[in-house]
Amino acid sequence: MSSELKLFGLSVNHALAKKVADELHMSLGQIDQASFADGEIYERILESVRGDDAFIIAPIATEANDAFMEIMIAVDALRRSSVDTINVVIPYFGYGRQDRKAKSREPITAKLVASLLEMNGVDRVVAVDFHADQLQGFFNNPVDHLLAAPLLSDYFFERKLTENLVVVSPDHTGAGRARKFADLLESPWGVINDSVASVMPESPDAIVGEVTGRRAIIIDDIIDSGRRMQMTAKALKANGATEVFAVSTHAVFSKDAGRVLANDANIDHIVVTDTVPIAPENQSSKLTVLSVAPLLAEAIKRIHQNEPLDELLKSHNNPTVKL
Amino acid sequence: MSSELKLFGLSVNHALAKKVADELHMSLGQIDQASFADGEIYERILESVRGDDAFIIAPIATEANDAFMEIMIAVDALRRSSVDTINVVIPYFGYGRQDRKAKSREPITAKLVASLLEMNGVDRVVAVDFHADQLQGFFNNPVDHLLAAPLLSDYFFERKLTENLVVVSPDHTGAGRARKFADLLESPWGVINDSVASVMPESPDAIVGEVTGRRAIIIDDIIDSGRRMQMTAKALKANGATEVFAVSTHAVFSKDAGRVLANDANIDHIVVTDTVPIAPENQSSKLTVLSVAPLLAEAIKRIHQNEPLDELLKSHNNPTVKL
Amino acid sequence: MSSELKLFGLSVNHALAKKVADELHMSLGQIDQASFADGEIYERILESVRGDDAFIIAPIATEANDAFMEIMIAVDALRRSSVDTINVVIPYFGYGRQDRKAKSREPITAKLVASLLEMNGVDRVVAVDFHADQLQGFFNNPVDHLLAAPLLSDYFFERKLTENLVVVSPDHTGAGRARKFADLLESPWGVINDSVASVMPESPDAIVGEVTGRRAIIIDDIIDSGRRMQMTAKALKANGATEVFAVSTHAVFSKDAGRVLANDANIDHIVVTDTVPIAPENQSSKLTVLSVAPLLAEAIKRIHQNEPLDELLKSHNNPTVKL
Amino acid sequence: MSSELKLFGLSVNHALAKKVADELHMSLGQIDQASFADGEIYERILESVRGDDAFIIAPIATEANDAFMEIMIAVDALRRSSVDTINVVIPYFGYGRQDRKAKSREPITAKLVASLLEMNGVDRVVAVDFHADQLQGFFNNPVDHLLAAPLLSDYFFERKLTENLVVVSPDHTGAGRARKFADLLESPWGVINDSVASVMPESPDAIVGEVTGRRAIIIDDIIDSGRRMQMTAKALKANGATEVFAVSTHAVFSKDAGRVLANDANIDHIVVTDTVPIAPENQSSKLTVLSVAPLLAEAIKRIHQNEPLDELLKSHNNPTVKL
Amino acid sequence: MSSELKLFGLSVNHALAKKVADELHMSLGQIDQASFADGEIYERILESVRGDDAFIIAPIATEANDAFMEIMIAVDALRRSSVDTINVVIPYFGYGRQDRKAKSREPITAKLVASLLEMNGVDRVVAVDFHADQLQGFFNNPVDHLLAAPLLSDYFFERKLTENLVVVSPDHTGAGRARKFADLLESPWGVINDSVASVMPESPDAIVGEVTGRRAIIIDDIIDSGRRMQMTAKALKANGATEVFAVSTHAVFSKDAGRVLANDANIDHIVVTDTVPIAPENQSSKLTVLSVAPLLAEAIKRIHQNEPLDELLKSHNNPTVKL
Amino acid sequence: MSSELKLFGLSVNHALAKKVADELHMSLGQIDQASFADGEIYERILESVRGDDAFIIAPIATEANDAFMEIMIAVDALRRSSVDTINVVIPYFGYGRQDRKAKSREPITAKLVASLLEMNGVDRVVAVDFHADQLQGFFNNPVDHLLAAPLLSDYFFERKLTENLVVVSPDHTGAGRARKFADLLESPWGVINDSVASVMPESPDAIVGEVTGRRAIIIDDIIDSGRRMQMTAKALKANGATEVFAVSTHAVFSKDAGRVLANDANIDHIVVTDTVPIAPENQSSKLTVLSVAPLLAEAIKRIHQNEPLDELLKSHNNPTVKL
Repeated sequence: MSSELKLFGLSVNHALAKKVADELHMSLGQIDQASFADGEIYERILESVRGDDAFIIAPIATEANDAFMEIMIAVDALRRSSVDTINVVIPYFGYGRQDRKAKSREPITAKLVASLLEMNGVDRVVAVDFHADQLQGFFNNPVDHLLAAPLLSDYFFERKLTENLVVVSPDHTGAGRARKFADLLESPWGVINDSVASVMPESPDAIVGEVTGRRAIIIDDIIDSGRRMQMTAKALKANGATEVFAVSTHAVFSKDAGRVLANDANIDHIVVTDTVPIAPENQSSKLTVLSVAPLLAEAIKRIHQNEPLDELLKSHNNPTVKL
Repeated sequence: MSSELKLFGLSVNHALAKKVADELHMSLGQIDQASFADGEIYERILESVRGDDAFIIAPIATEANDAFMEIMIAVDALRRSSVDTINVVIPYFGYGRQDRKAKSREPITAKLVASLLEMNGVDRVVAVDFHADQLQGFFNNPVDHLLAAPLLSDYFFERKLTENLVVVSPDHTGAGRARKFADLLESPWGVINDSVASVMPESPDAIVGEVTGRRAIIIDDIIDSGRRMQMTAKALKANGATEVFAVSTHAVFSKDAGRVLANDANIDHIVVTDTVPIAPENQSSKLTVLSVAPLLAEAIKRIHQNEPLDELLKSHNNPTVKL
Repeated sequence: MSSELKLFGLSVNHALAKKVADELHMSLGQIDQASFADGEIYERILESVRGDDAFIIAPIATEANDAFMEIMIAVDALRRSSVDTINVVIPYFGYGRQDRKAKSREPITAKLVASLLEMNGVDRVVAVDFHADQLQGFFNNPVDHLLAAPLLSDYFFERKLTENLVVVSPDHTGAGRARKFADLLESPWGVINDSVASVMPESPDAIVGEVTGRRAIIIDDIIDSGRRMQMTAKALKANGATEVFAVSTHAVFSKDAGRVLANDANIDHIVVTDTVPIAPENQSSKLTVLSVAPLLAEAIKRIHQNEPLDELLKSHNNPTVKL
Repeated sequence: MSSELKLFGLSVNHALAKKVADELHMSLGQIDQASFADGEIYERILESVRGDDAFIIAPIATEANDAFMEIMIAVDALRRSSVDTINVVIPYFGYGRQDRKAKSREPITAKLVASLLEMNGVDRVVAVDFHADQLQGFFNNPVDHLLAAPLLSDYFFERKLTENLVVVSPDHTGAGRARKFADLLESPWGVINDSVASVMPESPDAIVGEVTGRRAIIIDDIIDSGRRMQMTAKALKANGATEVFAVSTHAVFSKDAGRVLANDANIDHIVVTDTVPIAPENQSSKLTVLSVAPLLAEAIKRIHQNEPLDELLKSHNNPTVKL
Repeated sequence: MSSELKLFGLSVNHALAKKVADELHMSLGQIDQASFADGEIYERILESVRGDDAFIIAPIATEANDAFMEIMIAVDALRRSSVDTINVVIPYFGYGRQDRKAKSREPITAKLVASLLEMNGVDRVVAVDFHADQLQGFFNNPVDHLLAAPLLSDYFFERKLTENLVVVSPDHTGAGRARKFADLLESPWGVINDSVASVMPESPDAIVGEVTGRRAIIIDDIIDSGRRMQMTAKALKANGATEVFAVSTHAVFSKDAGRVLANDANIDHIVVTDTVPIAPENQSSKLTVLSVAPLLAEAIKRIHQNEPLDELLKSHNNPTVKL
Repeated sequence: MSSELKLFGLSVNHALAKKVADELHMSLGQIDQASFADGEIYERILESVRGDDAFIIAPIATEANDAFMEIMIAVDALRRSSVDTINVVIPYFGYGRQDRKAKSREPITAKLVASLLEMNGVDRVVAVDFHADQLQGFFNNPVDHLLAAPLLSDYFFERKLTENLVVVSPDHTGAGRARKFADLLESPWGVINDSVASVMPESPDAIVGEVTGRRAIIIDDIIDSGRRMQMTAKALKANGATEVFAVSTHAVFSKDAGRVLANDANIDHIVVTDTVPIAPENQSSKLTVLSVAPLLAEAIKRIHQNEPLDELLKSHNNPTVKL
């Protein structure tokens, strides 16, 4: 009578949920889903989940509110259906950037989302690359916070692109991220100086760090409108970078940003993961999408079997670096 | 230093919030609202609300999930801004029909929505005509549950349409609603027998109660697709009703139901309220929209001043009837 | 070290708890129970329950407040005794009719009772035929809501009483219940029109639906004072019904209603279940009491073994009908 | 718009609630109360309480479970009726003696009762002489814990009975109570030695302390069956006490204990308060009932006006003693 | 995949945690602990605890606030690390004496500590000899309350010191404790009369009970400053006791009380347990420290294996006495 | 009967609480405080606080655990004493740096501290310069987050030190803080490049930004050990800065860091606030301590009077900069 593992995909990024199930040689659990003309969603779990460890796999993306409520309603149905544990795998945690009051009388929507999940009975959240590490503290229950960095760095190791690199953060808040990624690749790193870069991209002061004659990797957690990537790429090329990689975990790609970046001559390659579903219009020959499905599958398997996740936070190519 | 009254409208049915404010000779509080390409909403309260009694006025309608999250985020902002009390006026309580498990492993989304509002710090809900009275019990905090029946019956009193009436429920679950409305108008009442009506609308068994030669009022809480209204009207006319009024509190009007009903020869008049915003394509010469704004305004005033709401549950034209 | 199943009966309807245990070939767990002159109750669990799945089996009946507190105190003792899960099987959920505010400043006691059970640490409620389906939403934890309809309909199948039937609801709110029961028996159905029936029982308008020359089954969830059953039976006989069965899940039988109904010439048979203990003065030759013990026992077994309960919601005699 | 004071009495000890209202020159708030044949209680507040400070005045006594649920249902009704604060004045806190696990797998019902009150939304409890001081810690909200000692000692001051006294505790757990009461009266004190007293009441070892030739006051918090009072009185008289006063705050008087004590020749006077209603059969010429109504009234007035209660914990006759 | 047992010691009384682990033939789990110059504590669990039953073993002692926060931070780390259950073994429950409001506007810190532990996610507390039994009610979750009395009485049985004994409580509040200990040893018992003892220790009225020519055991739950022990010993010797044993569960020994008592000629032996770490300066030839490690180890084993603890509450030497 | 304002200081930084009271022309409320040999704290509020707005003013500093528990116990006492609101002014929020899991199985102690405050009944926290803005989201209740930047920048405006400045962050995570402070002073800014600075302080690559010939302000939120300040100062002087100001809100000064910095020839001035009490050994002629008392006093006054705090987030000398 020990808990069985059950996986469920919802409507957003169902393809990723399916891939995770495939990795685990399982089928996704059956759900009846419908949405009505007034925007209401209906969901029903179609198979018994009594005593099971249920994992919902769905990002808060595409239409953030619909995606979030779809998760919430599925959680309500699971909780009332006598599951043992409710685990929500949220590869992209929407609203994550609203994580503090920058002005008086703002909400802190990231905390609201976290609180609502817990109040609804979620036992565990599995996430990939939160916008800020402090989001872990918005939860009281366990959060298994996975990192895409090993996956993204593998791209460079496997293609033997680790020579003569520089890793660049597109703003100061991402300096820590750039430094860690550079450590993985054993390369130097830099930071854009946006007050200069936005007006004089060709100035050496536009970038902190040496980029001339190097392959530059711009690393960020989210590509939303892509403007910061464009500004950074322009400064890098103007300062002599030989090739520019725009690298990011979450390809939100608002306003066809995927296409816009692909059309930008300063950007040679775009490397992202599939935490967020990528619309066809954002795909291009410059774009490489690495799948987080094996990572999520391994995490789910280990969680279900009470095995530690530490291994998943290591890079196979550079295991000496602590993420 | 006693609490000031502050009203806020959101994007859904902002016109109704404005009308309520007008009734109270007040302005709506200032909010900065934006929504992003990925569906995330941003809201910021632009004026101090410290120690105030804040009332948000917004239905869970049009796009139910966006509407709900818009309320939730505004509540989060208000709570963090040191208001004294958070009151949410929800003229149409979306998801209200998902109020029980009709099958195994269904959610009870109406309860989920109620619980999330309370968990977020809402002190009071003001609602109009819940789908089921039991929804009051989904809340622990005070619910001021208003009724549109006096407003809807006034339509008939004021137009002197109270002679020779019959009030008909379009299904059995609405029998109690029909009876109460008939009592207000001092008329007989009936119930549709849908298993007959759907196949033999002209059969006398299609309707419980006498309708021949009478003005018939079909009363329901929600007009969604309008199909039930159409079936009932057809049976009424086939059984000799002289005129048919489709009457309902909430004009959800999915799939252009307002236009569909207006084009149905069996329906002579459609009488609804403005709890839900009505799209232009659903408007017609047959449609009368009565405003709940004076009712909501009076309720808000009394709540703010700690006066009882009992008066609001009475009909001026027939005060002897208990609603 | 997996959880053992432990059953406990309390003072109200201990016989039913015993029957459930017999069905499962188990003994009831030992409790020391006492009540003092001032009405205080003392309970102590006399055997270790560490890590066990404990099921308390007791209705909120006979003396509702004592019965409820007896359950609550047992739950407190179990929770402090390190059980794994606390399951409360409440065959009759007293206070269930106080499920909404019908007037200003009323309590919603059904919700209060539900909330107090959950606050006390109850993990699951198993109930039979709630007064309103919405009561499921008064709980956040799983509710396994069982139905007596298959059991009650078996009475007619097994006695070959399914010919020439009509199922009648004693008021409008029960129309849905009557329809579903009629579907099980593949019979027509009707509804009493109480405003007529109470003054002119012999009028054809007293009943919606055809009853002349038929065996009539009056179906309700609760027989309390029995007055509604009596009025309905009178109208049925006056309209030509040949035989009248008063059928109900919960035999509350206030004020000796069992005897009163047995003495009513319009009523030929009374068919109820044993969710509530039936006092000797309410028993008679007209009364058949069907036991829910096998149903509860099967439910408990399946819950303990994490098997789905869907099967229990089906009728063996008419499995095509969805309850 | 500041909060108005509203007082409510329930069915148990309604006379005390009325007295408190009289002391405050107020009327009790109107409640509709009914109880049904199956023991269910119905309550409805009949006047608006929006924004008010409501005080329910009722002991958990006579029939403890009915009394407790009567309070709980009234609290639910008040909370849903938009009161500002809910204050429950519980002169006798039933179940207070079940305040710890004396054996394995016992409940702690006093804590359960306290928790349920708070979960139901009670803002404050006003109590008189808890069985153990630690009960204050069973609450998280404010408890105004009043003491009957000044009232009980006034009896002796006013009757000039303070000469040649000894105060005796009927068991060791009450030694602290006896000592404090003796301090108020500036008398010596003693403790019964029950293992001796129960077999050899005349032995000087039956009592710790000197009683010969003295007026003895036996002080306890509760007189339940009265057996301990009887044993103590017997030992006191056998050891030469000239007159015996049985003094207690709460006159639970199970099994006609009032009458039994009155018929006991070793007991000359019985002095109690009216926290619990005293049945006629327990009244006698030996019994003096002091009313806590002025104490409760003064406490309520001060609480409503945000004034400190320290004064109420002092004795007018001996203000130097700290209670 | 059933839960593994994991034990953790913290910095306070780490030796006891180690002994418990030794008794269970286990190692303590690895924790990284550090404290900073500003008093902040850092803790990190160094091994996977997913799905495990974790037991922290640490008293709230030595520096009460540091000890308490050390427990709290470890609990936070465990909860976020996906343990199955968090059990805190608190051999000495500091702040336990602040268990009621003795004066207006005091805190009830014992309840605060209990509430904070539960709010932090503690599933169970194992404690030894709470200052008041009511502390069990400060928790809602299971408390396994162990008793040191069998261990302390074994000291006398094993040394054949059970002849001609008297057990004495150093004040009235401890009378129950003394009586139970006397029952275990089948000896008479007494209570100090402190108002006499403090001024005339040699008076026969200083002690209730006969002590002349007897071995006297002074029994208390806590030795803090030791003053009460000294006063009692003085009165005992002055009244003819032949030998005095100061016996207590918790050796808090403030202000070098261990040394002070050892230097007191009226005290011949000091017998305590190791619930609190005993500083070298408090050790002496008069002091015997009995270890609670075997008791805690057996309790932990039984809890982990879902076996009852009743056996642990019995004395091997006198199993007929109920503790 | 409106709420009165009451201020309370505790033992840590009592001088600051006193200064705040002086600013408001009030006295501090009276508390009895004691600490025992075993580290337990006792607190009692000595004056009535019924219905009052109580503000505790105390940092979590010096001995973090003692300071935190002192606040918690005072909150418990206030809550039980019927205050209207509990406001805790925490000028320095200790444990704020433990705000995320940097490694597996770490606690998030900053969240724990925030949660415990709220669970204890704190209605509002007033803080100065949290270590990370996301800490606001660790609370659900209102946080009034004040900024020391206007105060610290006034130092330079008032001394006419705004010419030829550069503001430098001692590491990348503080880049945003440095930029904002530079904006206030209308100066350029830079960031230390610590991997270079730590080994080659004289290298131009040690600092991003131009410092030669300028007055350099190193800005940080906390000076703890001071090592980062020293490294930065060394690089600044080596790169030609003419004068170095070490500026920080919170002067934690572990291990006599105040003295160490004063003795460092590379540092010319140290400018901090009095959020944390500064030990005499950390004071020096180089040190200027600016008081946050006027800022806290104004905030408290506005909160008590329901006035907005926006004004307090502005700089008088440069009101065009948004903080």
